[in-house]
Amino acid sequence: MQRFVNNPDEVVEDTVKGFIKAHSDHVRLAENPRVVIAKHGPRAGKVGVVTGGGSGHEPAFMGYVGKNMLDAVAVGELFSSPTAKSFHHAIVEANGGRGVVVLYGNYAGDNMNVKMAIKLAAKDGIEVATVVANDDVCSAPLTEREKRRGVAGEIFMWKIGGAKAATGASLEEVRAVAQRAIDQCRSIGVGLGPCTLPAVGHPNFQIEAGTMEVGIGHHGEPGVRVEPLKSARDVAKDMCDIVLEDHNLPAGSEVAVLVSGLGATPVNELYILNDTIETEITARGLVIYKTYVGNYFTSLDMVGATLTVMALDAELKALLDIEVQCTTLL
Amino acid sequence: MQRFVNNPDEVVEDTVKGFIKAHSDHVRLAENPRVVIAKHGPRAGKVGVVTGGGSGHEPAFMGYVGKNMLDAVAVGELFSSPTAKSFHHAIVEANGGRGVVVLYGNYAGDNMNVKMAIKLAAKDGIEVATVVANDDVCSAPLTEREKRRGVAGEIFMWKIGGAKAATGASLEEVRAVAQRAIDQCRSIGVGLGPCTLPAVGHPNFQIEAGTMEVGIGHHGEPGVRVEPLKSARDVAKDMCDIVLEDHNLPAGSEVAVLVSGLGATPVNELYILNDTIETEITARGLVIYKTYVGNYFTSLDMVGATLTVMALDAELKALLDIEVQCTTLL
Repeated sequence: MQRFVNNPDEVVEDTVKGFIKAHSDHVRLAENPRVVIAKHGPRAGKVGVVTGGGSGHEPAFMGYVGKNMLDAVAVGELFSSPTAKSFHHAIVEANGGRGVVVLYGNYAGDNMNVKMAIKLAAKDGIEVATVVANDDVCSAPLTEREKRRGVAGEIFMWKIGGAKAATGASLEEVRAVAQRAIDQCRSIGVGLGPCTLPAVGHPNFQIEAGTMEVGIGHHGEPGVRVEPLKSARDVAKDMCDIVLEDHNLPAGSEVAVLVSGLGATPVNELYILNDTIETEITARGLVIYKTYVGNYFTSLDMVGATLTVMALDAELKALLDIEVQCTTLL
Repeated sequence: MQRFVNNPDEVVEDTVKGFIKAHSDHVRLAENPRVVIAKHGPRAGKVGVVTGGGSGHEPAFMGYVGKNMLDAVAVGELFSSPTAKSFHHAIVEANGGRGVVVLYGNYAGDNMNVKMAIKLAAKDGIEVATVVANDDVCSAPLTEREKRRGVAGEIFMWKIGGAKAATGASLEEVRAVAQRAIDQCRSIGVGLGPCTLPAVGHPNFQIEAGTMEVGIGHHGEPGVRVEPLKSARDVAKDMCDIVLEDHNLPAGSEVAVLVSGLGATPVNELYILNDTIETEITARGLVIYKTYVGNYFTSLDMVGATLTVMALDAELKALLDIEVQCTTLL
C-alpha cells in the first residue's frame, strides 16, 4: 500500500487535524472534534446550513464549510456516516435562531443518524428541515428516484442552499431551493481502479486491468456494467448518454457541469474527459453556463471520474454566482 | 494502463481543448494553439507575465493564467519544453508595451527555448526579463543553486510576479520581486509510485512497492535516496528537515506552505502530511502565514507529494494576499 498514512485506524483523525491547520483562516473544530464549523459562526437571523458524511471523500465534506456555503459539517469515519451525536452537534453549531437545513446524501446510515439528530435538536428547540441528495443515476431507476444515492451533485446542493441562506431567506425557502437544485442534478461515476481502506490494506472491490465499471458508486458500489476500457472519448460519451437521457432536458436548457476525479486520476485526464463532455452536451442543444473540473468529491485512491449535470433556472444561476469561501474553486 | 486517454499521442491536444472549454470565462487560446492567454488581454501599461513548461503537470502551467497572475503560457508536449516559437508567441501575446517577464523553471530545454524566444522578441522591440526557478532542494547542493530545478515553488513565483505586475510596477521591479520570491522558496518531492507517459504505456522509472524515493524530481528524476516507506509522520518530518535545513531561516520568520499532490495521491493524504508539516515548521519557531493543500503541480499519475516553503517579508505577504483568477484556490 503506497500511501501517506500513520496508524491506519487514525486516518480520519490525522486528516481532520491537517485540514484544520491548513484552513484555520476560515474553519475550526467545534467542541466535538468530529464537527467542523465556519469561523464566521452562525449569523443571527440566518438559516444554518449543515451536511455530513463519511470521510475519504476529501475535499468533501468539510472542505465546503465557509462563508456563503456550509456552516457546519459532521465528519464520519472512512466511508461511514457521522454519528447522530455529531449531526446533532453540527445542527446546534449552525443554529442562528432561524432553523437549520441538513443537506445530505441518501445512505442508510446518514438517513438514520440525521433522523435521530433532528429529534435531539427538537429538544433544544431547533427547527430542522432536510434535503436528501439522490443524484446518482445508476443507483436506481428514475421511477425509484428516492432510492438513488447522493454523490457529487451534493456540492451544487450545498452551494445553492448556502447562497440562499446567506441572502436571509427562510428555512422553508432554503430547503425548497436546495431541493430544486438536487432535483435538477444527475451524476454518474466510472471506475478504472478500486480504492483501499488503509485499515483493511487491500482494495474493497476489484476492477480488472483493461476493464472499467460504468455507474460505479463512490464507495465502489457496483455499477450497471463492467466492460472493456474504452477511449476517454467513448467513456465521456457514455457518461453523457446515461446522464442526459435520464435528465431529458429541452434544447436550450442551461446547465452547470462538474467533472470530478475520484482521487487517483490525474487532473489532465479530467480535462480530456471534459473535452468530449462539452462536445456531447452542446451537441444536444444544451448551453453550458459554468464548468468545474478537479478533485471536488473523491473516494480515497479510487481511479475514475464522475460527471454531474445540473439544469439551471434564473434563480439557480444567480445563487451559483454568489462567491463562496471554501477549499476549492466554486 | 487504466487511464482516460484517446490517442496517446494527442494527450496534450485533448487536455488543452478540455481545459479551454472548462475555463473559457477567463482564458482562451492564442492563434498558436500551444499558447494559452488570459481573456483580460495585455493591459496597456502593465508588464506582461509569462511562463511555460511541459504538459503533464496540470493545473500547471496553463491553470495559472488569469487576472493578477499569468498573462500567457507556452504549452509543451508531455514533460517537454514548449518550443522557442511558442515562448515567443506567449511573450508577444503578453506584451502591453512595458516589457514582459518570463518566469520559468530551470530545465535545459526551457533555458534554450526561452533564450531563442527572447532574441525573436527583441526583433519585435519587446524587452524581456527572466527569472529561472530553482527551488528543488535535492537536485543540487546549495552551493550550486543555479543547477537546481524549478518545481512547485514556481507557483509562488508566478503569484508574486503577477501581483506585482498588476500594481503597475516596472519590468525591473517585477523581475526583482519574482526573483526574491523564488530565492525564498525551497521544495522537496517524495515519490511512492512512478508515472506513465501514455504513448510509452509503461512507467518511465520504478519505485518498488514498500519503498519511497526522497527528493525525487517531478519528472521522476532520481532523488537523494530510496528507503523503506515510512509513516506519513516520518515522511513529513524528513521533508521538513531537508527543506528547512537548506532554508536556514531565523526563528520568527513567516512562511507560506504549499503541499501538492503529484497526481495520484488522494487529497486526504495531503492533509495527513500537512498535520505533521505544520507541527514541524512551528516547532522550529517559524510562523505559517498561509497554507495551500491540493493538486497544484502534478506529474501525470505519479504517487507522491511535494512540500514548498516560501519565506515571507512584508511585500511578499502583501503580494500573496492580492486576489487572483486562476483554476485553483490561490
